[in-house]
Amino acid sequence: MKTTITAISTPPGTGGIAVIRVSGDKAIEICNGLFVAARKDFDVNQMDANSLVFGSVKAGEEIIDEVVLSLFRAPHSFTGEDVVEISCHGSVYIQQRILQLLIQKGCTLAAPGEFTQRAFLNGKMDLSQAEAVADLIASTSAASHRMALNQMRGGFSRELTMLRTQLLDFVSLVELELDFSEEDVEFANREHLKELVQKIEVAISKLSDSFSVGNALKNGIPVALVGETNVGKSTLLNVLLNEERAIVSDVHGTTRDVIEDMINIGGITFRFIDTAGIRETKDKVENLGIERTYQKIEQAVIVLWILDCTQLSEHIEWLTSRIEEKAAGKKVILVFNKIDKIDIEEKEVLDQLFSQFDGEKIYISAKQRINTDELQKALVKAAQLPEVQPGDVVVNNVRHYEALQNALKAIRRVNTGLESGISGDFLSQDIRECMFFLGEITGQISTDDILGNIFSKFCIGK
Amino acid sequence: MKTTITAISTPPGTGGIAVIRVSGDKAIEICNGLFVAARKDFDVNQMDANSLVFGSVKAGEEIIDEVVLSLFRAPHSFTGEDVVEISCHGSVYIQQRILQLLIQKGCTLAAPGEFTQRAFLNGKMDLSQAEAVADLIASTSAASHRMALNQMRGGFSRELTMLRTQLLDFVSLVELELDFSEEDVEFANREHLKELVQKIEVAISKLSDSFSVGNALKNGIPVALVGETNVGKSTLLNVLLNEERAIVSDVHGTTRDVIEDMINIGGITFRFIDTAGIRETKDKVENLGIERTYQKIEQAVIVLWILDCTQLSEHIEWLTSRIEEKAAGKKVILVFNKIDKIDIEEKEVLDQLFSQFDGEKIYISAKQRINTDELQKALVKAAQLPEVQPGDVVVNNVRHYEALQNALKAIRRVNTGLESGISGDFLSQDIRECMFFLGEITGQISTDDILGNIFSKFCIGK
Repeated sequence: MKTTITAISTPPGTGGIAVIRVSGDKAIEICNGLFVAARKDFDVNQMDANSLVFGSVKAGEEIIDEVVLSLFRAPHSFTGEDVVEISCHGSVYIQQRILQLLIQKGCTLAAPGEFTQRAFLNGKMDLSQAEAVADLIASTSAASHRMALNQMRGGFSRELTMLRTQLLDFVSLVELELDFSEEDVEFANREHLKELVQKIEVAISKLSDSFSVGNALKNGIPVALVGETNVGKSTLLNVLLNEERAIVSDVHGTTRDVIEDMINIGGITFRFIDTAGIRETKDKVENLGIERTYQKIEQAVIVLWILDCTQLSEHIEWLTSRIEEKAAGKKVILVFNKIDKIDIEEKEVLDQLFSQFDGEKIYISAKQRINTDELQKALVKAAQLPEVQPGDVVVNNVRHYEALQNALKAIRRVNTGLESGISGDFLSQDIRECMFFLGEITGQISTDDILGNIFSKFCIGK
Repeated sequence: MKTTITAISTPPGTGGIAVIRVSGDKAIEICNGLFVAARKDFDVNQMDANSLVFGSVKAGEEIIDEVVLSLFRAPHSFTGEDVVEISCHGSVYIQQRILQLLIQKGCTLAAPGEFTQRAFLNGKMDLSQAEAVADLIASTSAASHRMALNQMRGGFSRELTMLRTQLLDFVSLVELELDFSEEDVEFANREHLKELVQKIEVAISKLSDSFSVGNALKNGIPVALVGETNVGKSTLLNVLLNEERAIVSDVHGTTRDVIEDMINIGGITFRFIDTAGIRETKDKVENLGIERTYQKIEQAVIVLWILDCTQLSEHIEWLTSRIEEKAAGKKVILVFNKIDKIDIEEKEVLDQLFSQFDGEKIYISAKQRINTDELQKALVKAAQLPEVQPGDVVVNNVRHYEALQNALKAIRRVNTGLESGISGDFLSQDIRECMFFLGEITGQISTDDILGNIFSKFCIGK
């Protein structure tokens, strides 16, 4: 017996209107028990699917609110069940009263993501699509929004289904051979198979590789701000954050808490990694917090190495060479701050000193906001992210990435097996394993643990 | 030419879903320009009133979100105009993108309360009903909710219309006499008129009197916490606030900012007035901050006079008598705090000392939470608010109260005029004035200034 669930689906708090969603076999019956239509003799039970009706929610004789009821009938609803949405005045008091009434009448309070979980369980979407619903709601940039929307609309699922279908055709033939193993027939042409497996390996590999881009777009490109104290690191960070905040100022609910040290520049999200650990203790260079800085550099894709034009550490050459060494393979941008405090000759000395440095060099004043826009451009350039086009499949979910990695290992074993001519039963086993991991992504293969883990991260009401 | 307006109507922030409302002549046309239904060959223009359709919002070729469109056709909508509600995923990014698209396509961003203002201007509700919409959204207690809902549903308007109709009948007769003044006829029977005017005076007076209750219910009953420093005032306030917060903990969005020092006990809202001004400067009793305390007491309905059991000020008797004097007509509750720190004999001394005090006396320990529930009960008892029944008309709006006061003055002049037998033209003028003030409440008489003032206090999206 499935319960009928309910939750407030709109953002928490007070607003013009709020929407309370009810889904399940008894959704219509329960809502009928607390709703009186403004039109006389109107029966919610007889209401058309996809229609609206105006009326009152009543607790006994007391009117709680005037509301609009929207009715979706199974299976043509978000969850695939009967769904009623109650659109009420957005007072927190009213929202709570109606929710309590619904629970009194037999609804269960929905767990986080339970509506979407039901949509998945009722076959309205696969698991990767369900996960995309949460990503879509959390999306804060054009790129993360595009990835999530495409995934929700089934772009990723289609690719995976195609791969699984090809593997299934293949494994069926191999397993047919096993049935006739005593006759030593070969239904599956090994040369065709090799070709197919290589194609599949390339496809999985391409999806798996897209994770580095997808993850950067979703979670931000990690940028380590490296510099000694007093070089103007936090002023610079504030300047960047403030400019961003000005850009998003017309967006409700974008609070300091949410954006943290995330900065959205040119549609790309950068995540700044604090390296507050460096302090200028001149006697012991080795203990300059440099070990901690190394670790931060390790996590970063881009390193902003900030120097104070007016006051270079005496160990600067040694430091720079160490950082260049540790940041090999990363993009290092050398930022000379406080450029307004030095003259042209002093600048030439700096140029000379860092002539060997082959990364980008930018002279700025964070305080005076000189050249900070150039720094932003340099960050975007260093990010070197391909723009996500509508329709592109980009993997950005760690769970999917791990499954793809496992699928890749399995398909590679298939490839090697084919090369070395292993027997059909081993071949079949590896192909089935590859299919298993691909199926994990779309939820054809899933456990309660996996589902619980995925949906618990949703907000309530979705 | 009226514009077509749009705004996000659900609470700000991220949630499962959000609703963007569009109202005006071009609402359907504009939404049609950015929406593609999932069903083929579906035309939003041909859509039934009060129906829903699932599809996508597109910016050119790019899909922004999958949404549900709800259509209400004029005049059967909240505003009385064509209204489309777009129910999208509750990501702030998506909400903003769709809003921007709507504006690009020709919508104007709605001003605060503009949807309700249009409902008023299109005759869907009168002004007092429109004002009740904002009150309803802001309502946080059963009582304030009930008052607002009843007002929104027109209970108050009906009473006012009835009074105005009676006055109109009356003034018509009086004015008819004026037309025939040379003939010295009397169409309006003066005895009947007196009776009627007295009835109307009683009715207006009753409405006007309900303001003290209505205002207390809406804005909280003012309670002055009076006490010297260190008697445990803030501990007590925190205990009360914390208990309240526990009660409302399942209510989203009820933040400390919102409730301030408002406490909801037994369905009644109490508003605590800080009296931090009192300090124990023993030498100069007169300057004990007592003047400031007097002012606070002035604003209060209930006075909590808090004493430390373990340490009475040496001026306590003098102080208490002064406070009793200043708080004449108010409910004074004497709260002995830190009762856990004294023994039974010390308590008897206190009893003796305050045997003359004729208000309520309560011994508590705020820290140990001893008897704080008794204090809550005493507060509820002292509030002595009649419970608002569904259907009761209670005035809780200062603008309405002022208009009623003016109407009352006018009707009293009519009464006196009738007594002294003044001429019909003076009588008519006073009756018209009374009608004018009653009409101000429902908006039959209104100016742009009044409307601007009222609707600017609404939230955007309503």
